[in-house]
Amino acid sequence: MTRKALIEQIHLKKSYLCVGLDTDITKIPKHLLSLPDPVFEFNKQVIDATRDYCVSYKINTAFYESQGIKGWEAMEKTVNYIPPTHFTIADAKRGDIGNTSSQYAKAFFEVLNFDAITVAPYMGEDSVRPFLEYQNKWTIVLGLTSNPGARDFELQQTGTERVYEKVLRTVSGWGSPENLMFVIGATQADEFTNIRNILPHHFFLVPGVGSQGGSLKDISDKAMNNDCGILINVSRAIIFAGKKEDFATEAKAIAAQYQREMSAYIK
Amino acid sequence: MTRKALIEQIHLKKSYLCVGLDTDITKIPKHLLSLPDPVFEFNKQVIDATRDYCVSYKINTAFYESQGIKGWEAMEKTVNYIPPTHFTIADAKRGDIGNTSSQYAKAFFEVLNFDAITVAPYMGEDSVRPFLEYQNKWTIVLGLTSNPGARDFELQQTGTERVYEKVLRTVSGWGSPENLMFVIGATQADEFTNIRNILPHHFFLVPGVGSQGGSLKDISDKAMNNDCGILINVSRAIIFAGKKEDFATEAKAIAAQYQREMSAYIK
Repeated sequence: MTRKALIEQIHLKKSYLCVGLDTDITKIPKHLLSLPDPVFEFNKQVIDATRDYCVSYKINTAFYESQGIKGWEAMEKTVNYIPPTHFTIADAKRGDIGNTSSQYAKAFFEVLNFDAITVAPYMGEDSVRPFLEYQNKWTIVLGLTSNPGARDFELQQTGTERVYEKVLRTVSGWGSPENLMFVIGATQADEFTNIRNILPHHFFLVPGVGSQGGSLKDISDKAMNNDCGILINVSRAIIFAGKKEDFATEAKAIAAQYQREMSAYIK
Repeated sequence: MTRKALIEQIHLKKSYLCVGLDTDITKIPKHLLSLPDPVFEFNKQVIDATRDYCVSYKINTAFYESQGIKGWEAMEKTVNYIPPTHFTIADAKRGDIGNTSSQYAKAFFEVLNFDAITVAPYMGEDSVRPFLEYQNKWTIVLGLTSNPGARDFELQQTGTERVYEKVLRTVSGWGSPENLMFVIGATQADEFTNIRNILPHHFFLVPGVGSQGGSLKDISDKAMNNDCGILINVSRAIIFAGKKEDFATEAKAIAAQYQREMSAYIK
């Protein structure tokens, strides 16, 4: 999906919501467990219920890998089920030496046909470049993450800036706002004005609203640009809003609530 | 596998060789491609041929994921085929917020029953801890990698030390030499004396000998400790030594050559 197409979807739906399919099989409603593929059935119903309120789905690969081959099958079926109008993200946090990163790019951009993948920056340029070589695909590099561990390395000083700032500045030179985004956690609200100054044009994928406690209004105020420029991910607070047969209706209600709030913030 | 058992295997075989199963389906001998599972058949023959000369096998998950569900099946069969005398490493370079890292730990320690997994440190403590919670399992954290991109962030100064040194010092406080190793690339030979001073007791997993050009003698001189303390990984130079029907014989010859050289260096 191109940047232009993504922005069109944002304006069409008046939403910059990304629904995170962190489908933990131990947390889905019990009545699904007797079906042949409970994880896919859960995702299918969540997607059907929320698609009008979001512009993107993010699949957290860990929750699928922990189910082995069956999980990989559920991931493949899920990404194929997501409508082509929605921006699909493999939240995989991959990254390795060049010839290995090429294999990950193949896995997520060719075999699974995601629009985007999240990538860890630690190993530097040749670990990120293979993802950027794909046309109309996106690389979403970890900048400043939402978890407490962000303080261990990301927020440490290096020269005149912090490690994550160096990552933003350096990595932004390897791609463009047309094929590169950054993960910036919503729990880091104090940093958003600074981050938007460093990178005025890039989209940010923002997890940490919802269960992790980040504020949608605060982030939207500080981080939006003229093209919207943010995708807010909400996972557990939407997909596990209900725990029984009506889980999809509950998910829809919460997604709609986020969309309504977002529609007021979009310029 | 415990540290004691690993050290016993090293002394028994007079080897600290890890064979890297970076099984690229486009590079395996053509006669295997008509079999139901060419990747597993290739790995099986390589394992049978090299097991007497190495103490460990490292599966690079990218080369399996790029084959989709079939690749995940080949990985599962391969890890189950490796003898229990050998230390098995999932070279997966995972790492995410706590509840997600727990799912990766489950995938590689429970579903796939690897002894160890490689983990990226960028996201800090809560992204690494879930792996360390497993008994008799190992977390191998990226320290200083073998690729050119190591200079982008790992070798940058932060306060009085480089980023990778900060990673080594900080992460070593989260586990012990009984459940924690570090990846240190063989192409970084100049740094090994310094690194061994920082971490006298830990094992290092050392890729980059072979196709990437690191020197086995140089690394062994600088990095070994009284318990050996290093696992040298060689992937392509062993598994793709031959390109025809006799690939396993060729792999065996190269593995045996590394083992002979190592037997002279072991204290």
